[in-house]
Amino acid sequence: MNRLDGTEHERARNVSSWRSVTPPGRGPWTADLSLLGDNALEEVNRLWTIAQVLSNTVHAVKNSLQVTGGNAELLESREGLDPAIIRRAQTIRAQATRASDALESLLAYSRPVSESPDVVELGDLARTALEMRSHSLGRARITADVTGVEGGPYLTRARRRDLLQLLLNLLLGSEAVIAGWSGAKIVIGLRRRGSDVVIEVSASGSPASAVTAGPAGEFGLDLQQRVMARLAAELGAVLECELSREGGPKLALALPAQDAAGNVAPARSS
Amino acid sequence: MNRLDGTEHERARNVSSWRSVTPPGRGPWTADLSLLGDNALEEVNRLWTIAQVLSNTVHAVKNSLQVTGGNAELLESREGLDPAIIRRAQTIRAQATRASDALESLLAYSRPVSESPDVVELGDLARTALEMRSHSLGRARITADVTGVEGGPYLTRARRRDLLQLLLNLLLGSEAVIAGWSGAKIVIGLRRRGSDVVIEVSASGSPASAVTAGPAGEFGLDLQQRVMARLAAELGAVLECELSREGGPKLALALPAQDAAGNVAPARSS
Repeated sequence: MNRLDGTEHERARNVSSWRSVTPPGRGPWTADLSLLGDNALEEVNRLWTIAQVLSNTVHAVKNSLQVTGGNAELLESREGLDPAIIRRAQTIRAQATRASDALESLLAYSRPVSESPDVVELGDLARTALEMRSHSLGRARITADVTGVEGGPYLTRARRRDLLQLLLNLLLGSEAVIAGWSGAKIVIGLRRRGSDVVIEVSASGSPASAVTAGPAGEFGLDLQQRVMARLAAELGAVLECELSREGGPKLALALPAQDAAGNVAPARSS
Repeated sequence: MNRLDGTEHERARNVSSWRSVTPPGRGPWTADLSLLGDNALEEVNRLWTIAQVLSNTVHAVKNSLQVTGGNAELLESREGLDPAIIRRAQTIRAQATRASDALESLLAYSRPVSESPDVVELGDLARTALEMRSHSLGRARITADVTGVEGGPYLTRARRRDLLQLLLNLLLGSEAVIAGWSGAKIVIGLRRRGSDVVIEVSASGSPASAVTAGPAGEFGLDLQQRVMARLAAELGAVLECELSREGGPKLALALPAQDAAGNVAPARSS
C-alpha cells in the first residue's frame, strides 16, 4: 500500500492514482479551496461533511416521523376510544408534523442544487429564517419578532435559497453583535418603499460592559459582509447598513417588488 | 444609511463601522478565507450557515420527539388497553428514540467545540459513520457492511470527532468513486496489526462504461486527500491507499492500539 502520511511526494502519487478513477465532478467553487491553509481547509471540509451527513440523517428521521404520524393517525381514527387517548394521539401527530416541517426547511436549504428564480414572499421568508434560529435565539435570550406582515404580501422574484442565505447572514451577524446584551432584541421589519419591497433586520439592546468573545466557529463579520454584498449584487438587491442609536446594527435589503400579476416593477431610479 | 452595494469603498466603510461593535471572536480558521474568490467564499458561507441552522433545528426536533415519546409512553402504561393500541404506542416510542439518537449523532458531530482525546472504539465509530450515510448509500444502490467486529474491541485514543471526520471522508471519497457502478459495495473492515488497530474502507464493483459526473456540491478528492493526510497526521495515524484489483479504492487507517487498562501500545516501529 502507498502510505499517505503527508509528505508531498507520497501525497502527489496517491492523489494521481486515485484521480485516475475519479470522475471530474468537482464544482468550480472547490478549485479555490486549494489556496487555503491546512486549518481552514480542514474546517471547510468539516462543514462540507456535515452537509453530507445532514441530508442523510434528515431523510432517515423524516421516515421515522412518517411512521410515527401514521400510527398516531390510525389511533385517532379508532372508534370508541377514550378521549384522553385520542388527545395524546393528536399531540403526537401534531409534533411529528411540526418536526417534519422544520426538517424539510433545513433539507431544502442544504440541497446543493442551483435553482431558478421564483416568486418569494418576504414575510414567509422572514418566518422561515426566524424558525431556523428560534431555539438559538431563545437560548441567547434574544427576543425576536416580525413586523409589517399585515401590509403584505411582499412579493419579489429571486432564487429563494440565495435570498434565505443572505437573510440568515443578516440574522447571524446581528445575533453575534448583540449576544450577551441585556434586553437583546431582533426585529425583522417588512415594508414597501417606492417600487421596492424592503426587509430590515434591526438589533437592539444595552451593550454588556464587558465585550464577550464571539461564539466558537465564528465565520467573521467582515467575511460575512463580503458574502452579503456579493449575494445582494447577484439578487439585484440593495443592502444598506447603519448603526442605530440603540447601538445595534440595522441591516436593510431592498428588492424590486413584483405585482400579483407576476410583473416586476420597473428598475428603480437611484 | 450606507449602501453596501459591493463597491470596495462602501464595503470598507461599512465593515469598519460594523467592526467597531463586533467582538473579536473570529477563529483562526476564518482568517484564511479572505483568500477565496467570491464563488468559493459564498459556498463556504452557505455551508457555515447550514451548520448554524442545523443545531437549531435539531434541538427543536429533539424537543418534539421528546413530547412524542413521552405521550407514547403514557399510552403504553395505561391499564386495560387493547394490545393493538399498545403495539402502536410502542412503535411510536421506538421510532422517536431512533430518530432522536440519529439527531444526537449529527449534533455531536456538528458542534464547533474543540475536544480532548478520549478512548474510541473503532467498531462503534464505523457503525456511527455508516448510519450517517445509510440513507444515501441505499439511494445510490451501494451495499455496505462492517466486518471483523467479533475480534474487537478495537480501542485507540483520539479526538473522536476528528477521527469521525477522517472516516467520513474515506467513506464519501469511496462513494464518489464507485457511484453508478454495478454491484457497488463498501466494506469497513476492522483488524489488528502488530500494536495497531486498523480500520479499512474497501470499495468494489464493476465500473460503469460511461464515467458519471460526481454529485453536485462535490468537495474534490484531491482536496479531501489533503484533509485526510492532515487529519491522519494530527491523530498520529497512518493512512494507506491502494487501488484494489476490483477497481475500487482501498483506504486503511492504522492507529496505535490502547489496551483495556488504558495504556497506549508502545510506538510502532516503522
